[in-house]
Order: sequence, then C-alpha cells, then structure tokens
Amino acid sequence: MKEIRLAARPVGWPTAETFEIAETPVPEPGPGQVLIRNVYMSVDPYMRGRMNDVKSYMPPFAVGEPLDGGAIGEVVTSHAENVPVGSYVVHSLGWREYSVADAARVRVVDPAAAPTLSAYLGLLGMTGLTAYVGLLDIAQFKEGDTVFVSGAAGAVGSVVGQIARLRGAKRVIGSAGSAEKTRHLIDDLGFDAAFNYKDAPVRDQLRAAAPDGVDVYFDNVGGDHLEAAISTLNKFGRIAMCGAIAQYNDVAPPAAPRNLASAIGKEINLRGFLVGNHSHRMPDFVAEVGGWLRSGRITARETIVDGLENAPEAFLGLLRGDNTGKMVVKLG
Amino acid sequence: MKEIRLAARPVGWPTAETFEIAETPVPEPGPGQVLIRNVYMSVDPYMRGRMNDVKSYMPPFAVGEPLDGGAIGEVVTSHAENVPVGSYVVHSLGWREYSVADAARVRVVDPAAAPTLSAYLGLLGMTGLTAYVGLLDIAQFKEGDTVFVSGAAGAVGSVVGQIARLRGAKRVIGSAGSAEKTRHLIDDLGFDAAFNYKDAPVRDQLRAAAPDGVDVYFDNVGGDHLEAAISTLNKFGRIAMCGAIAQYNDVAPPAAPRNLASAIGKEINLRGFLVGNHSHRMPDFVAEVGGWLRSGRITARETIVDGLENAPEAFLGLLRGDNTGKMVVKLG
Repeated sequence: MKEIRLAARPVGWPTAETFEIAETPVPEPGPGQVLIRNVYMSVDPYMRGRMNDVKSYMPPFAVGEPLDGGAIGEVVTSHAENVPVGSYVVHSLGWREYSVADAARVRVVDPAAAPTLSAYLGLLGMTGLTAYVGLLDIAQFKEGDTVFVSGAAGAVGSVVGQIARLRGAKRVIGSAGSAEKTRHLIDDLGFDAAFNYKDAPVRDQLRAAAPDGVDVYFDNVGGDHLEAAISTLNKFGRIAMCGAIAQYNDVAPPAAPRNLASAIGKEINLRGFLVGNHSHRMPDFVAEVGGWLRSGRITARETIVDGLENAPEAFLGLLRGDNTGKMVVKLG
Repeated sequence: MKEIRLAARPVGWPTAETFEIAETPVPEPGPGQVLIRNVYMSVDPYMRGRMNDVKSYMPPFAVGEPLDGGAIGEVVTSHAENVPVGSYVVHSLGWREYSVADAARVRVVDPAAAPTLSAYLGLLGMTGLTAYVGLLDIAQFKEGDTVFVSGAAGAVGSVVGQIARLRGAKRVIGSAGSAEKTRHLIDDLGFDAAFNYKDAPVRDQLRAAAPDGVDVYFDNVGGDHLEAAISTLNKFGRIAMCGAIAQYNDVAPPAAPRNLASAIGKEINLRGFLVGNHSHRMPDFVAEVGGWLRSGRITARETIVDGLENAPEAFLGLLRGDNTGKMVVKLG
C-alpha cells in the first residue's frame, strides 16, 4: 500500500518537497481493531499548523511518519463485532490507502443516507459540524442577524452561509477569492451579497455590502478580514474564530487586527473554538442539516482530486484557494 | 461658580491647553430637578476617548462646553419630592462646582454607609461595579482560577484582584508601573505576585509569575499586556476587555496583539464590555462588596487631588499612572 509522509517541515508555503509517497505493507488489525480500505480522505487548512514543530491543541506531524486526518472507507477485516466487514466508517487516519483503527474510534455511517460517501467528510461530517457549532453555539446566531463569513466558498464557509439563511438571517454576506466563487455564493447558495477580496480593500467592500453593519462574523481567514469585520460589527457583535488561513504560511506575525480595542466600546465577543470539544452537538446537527439535505434546501459542492499521489497537490491547492466547497481526495 | 471646559481637542497626549476653567452663573433647577453642590468628582481613563471627535458609545465632548463625568454632592435646592435638600447623590455631571440634574437620573446614597463620600465614586461606585461585572459576568471567573489583571494598582484593577482573592482564586497576579505600586499590591491588597511592566518585557515577567498559566485576564491596558496575556492563557482562557489605556493617546493604531489567532486553538473567549449595560448587577454588587468593606476584608486606596482648578492635572496624572487606586478631585 501507499501512504504520504511528511518529508520535511515547511518554512512558509509547503512545496512538493514537503511530502514523500512511500510503499509500506498493509498493516494487520489487532484485537478490537478493523482494517479499512479508504475511499476518500479530507485535506483541511488546520493540517498546515501540524506541520510546524509547535505545541498546539494537536501534536505536530512527525518528519518521516505518515500524515493523518479525516477519511472514510470500507471495513475489509474486522476483529470487532460491532463494526463488521462491509461497514463504512469515518475515522482520523487518512493520507494512506489502508488504515488500522480501534473500532471504538471510528464512526459507522449509512452510505444510503448521503448523496455520496464524501459528504461524510464535508456537509455531514466535521466540516458541517464546525459550521453548525461555530454559528449557533459560539457566535450565538439569532434570527434577524446579519452574518458575514469569510472563505465563504470553502467547505465550512459555504455551510455557515446556508445555515444562516435557513435559520432566518436578515442578510448573509460572503467573501471569496474569485468572481466565479462569488457568483456561486449568490446563484447557488442563496447569499444576499458576496465580494472578491482581491478586488479592493476588505473593509471598503464589506461596508458597501453591509450598510446596516454586521452582527455575526464567522472568521476562517484572520488578518485584514478580521480587522474589517471588527470595524463593521454592530454593538454586541459576535465573532466565531474558526481559522486564519491568510496567515498559516506567514513567517512573521501578522499586523492586524489593529482595531481590537474597539471591541470594548462595541461590547464585542470574540471566541475561538475547535469542533472537537463540541461533538455532543452531532445528533442535533445530523437531524437538522440532514433534514435540509434530504429536502434539497442545502447543498454542498465538492472539489474532488483523484488518487492518493495527488493528495499533496490537493492540500497545496486548498491553501491557495483553488477549491470550491469541500476539497477531498478519492483513493484507489 | 467654576467649571472646566474642553478648550481644544488633543492630538496625542492632552496638555494644559486642552482645558479651560470658566466662570458661569449657578444654574436654576427646573421642575423635577435638583441643584447639587459637588463634593468629589471622578477622573477616568475613558474620558480621553470622548475628547476625540469620534462617534463611540458616548457622544464626544464638545469644544467650548463643560466636560462631564461621575460626581457626588449634596442637594442644596430641590424641585423633586423624592430627593430632598440635604440628600447626597451620585450623578454624571462632574467637572463643575454645581450641577443641575433630573432627580430621576441621580442615585441617592447614605453617607454613613461608606468610609468616605468618595467611596461612592470608587469601590462602591461604577469603578467597583466595573470590576465586579468584568470579573464575574464577562470573564466568568470561577473558584480555583488563576487571574491576571493589568493596571492592578488602579481604581478598577485593585478591586478586581481583591474580589478574585475573596472569591477563591488559585493565584492573583497584577502588573503596575512602579515598585511602590507592586509592593502595595502584595502587602496591602493580598496579591500573590506583582511585577513592574517597565522592568522587562511583559510576556517574560508574566510567564515567570504564572508558571501554571492564566485562566482569566482582566485587561485595562491593551497593547503588549494583551499580547502577553493571550500567550500565557490556558486552554479555555477568558479575557474581559475593559480598557486599553496604553493606547488612548496613540496617534497611529497599535500593532498588537499579533498572536490573536492562537485564540482558536486555545478556545479563548475575549469579550469587551461597558459597565453601563450591567447596572442590574448593582444590588448584588453592593451586597457582596459592601459586606466585605464593613468586615474589613476589602480596601481601596484613593489618590485625592484638591480643587476643581487641579482637575485637568489630576486627569493627566491618571493617564500617566501617577495614581494608586481611585483618582478623585475634592471640590470647594
């Protein structure tokens, strides 16, 4: 089998030299474990942070060892009664063709309940749950709020905007990195306004798109976007801090947001979060978002890259913003 | 009577030329109003912001008009039955020897229930309530937390540290601007550790003072202090953003905090607040802090400046950090 390893820690942007593809024997599952033939794997922005040798909320990837991350596959050998051969499972040992996992650490899913298996890595997976928890629990979204989401054509952002719309937002505004993406936000996902952050300063475009200000900002980007949002937020505005993709490859610390002190007078709440500490919301999330999916009221475009050997390029493309919606890699 | 007016808007630090003292007739109270002979007036850092011609949570001071702010005085003429002559009242029309106020907008207090009248501008007034609400409601302090407060020898900071101690903090750490102040924090107010921020980088001193990290940061200062606190905060840390005195006189926006994105992985909550929207907590605050005051478990030093004509210098001294505890001006 093939797996992708971290060849060297990147400084700044990762390159092809950051990764190596290796051949290794298919591992044997032990007692209570299953062997999974992976069908799709996820690439996510947070993986960039794990390439640095920095203590964070997850341990860093080790040089010479396989990367890991969300994946879905079929159980081909099982030493666990509750996860029989033929089950489809979501787990966290991607970047390889076969994975051995403890049965207790996989989530069995129903392939018939989703349009494609890959949805369990996106709209119906951690990506969708991140959008749900961040908007509703962290940013305390309520009906009538004006919502701004950055990286709005990305995996999380595109779900945030749709949940806001379906839950009764007054106005949903998104930023993205191309005219094609902003058209997608308005034409396909029902955003009220969208702008290309490369066209003009974010602050100017956001002010024009939000003449009555913003109540909730869902931040996937950091930097100028966060500063512009603080400037445009209304009294008692709320920010869900989910990601800062604009600065993941920066070598020097960012200058923005220089206006953070205005959070005092506007009584703004900024709250960082990781979806991992909110898994108790999975049942509510599956019920509500799954319902919208079945009734056709929510949609999720995916960008699918074929072949494990192309996973590094998929990840680099993700950091560049090449994807619309969830970026996944189809294996084998 | 005399009053202090805004002579010119300052750019950067205010100077003596920012203010003018003027003579004006003692005003006549109308129906439902009272005439107050002021005894003490408060100077507070937020007043600096109101000297700029910038829309904020309070309207800016007008050039040529008297300044205003918290004050306490004796009612000498009353056209309101519920506020008779001889009452002592807290109100918001300071910076003048006599004020006319609507009786509905003053708070009658009992001079016998406080060690000095000035306490109603400090420990038992908006200053103390700011500390109480910020620590308990905004930062969600809980027993066993390690608390760091900047501007700890100031009016709000010195109360924050003492409430944290009395409510069962594991460790209370304060920063201040002189060795005399840091001694006061430890010897008189019961802080566990204190450092002079002028001695060495805040981050280094805070790390040394908080070997197990910080759970709650009460920010009166902004800038380097806020950046250092974010760096030292533990998982699920909370920041009450109360003030940013380090940058009130800055002409250019500040660079810090450059590490704000680490609020994501540490799931930090930063929350700006103004005490004005939390006045429903006044009864709880008076009961708890008043009780500590009567039993001698909480104390509040004051820096008292004599004479309305010295109020501008008192305010400038406040911005420089000349005060220990609440800075008040005694009138007449």
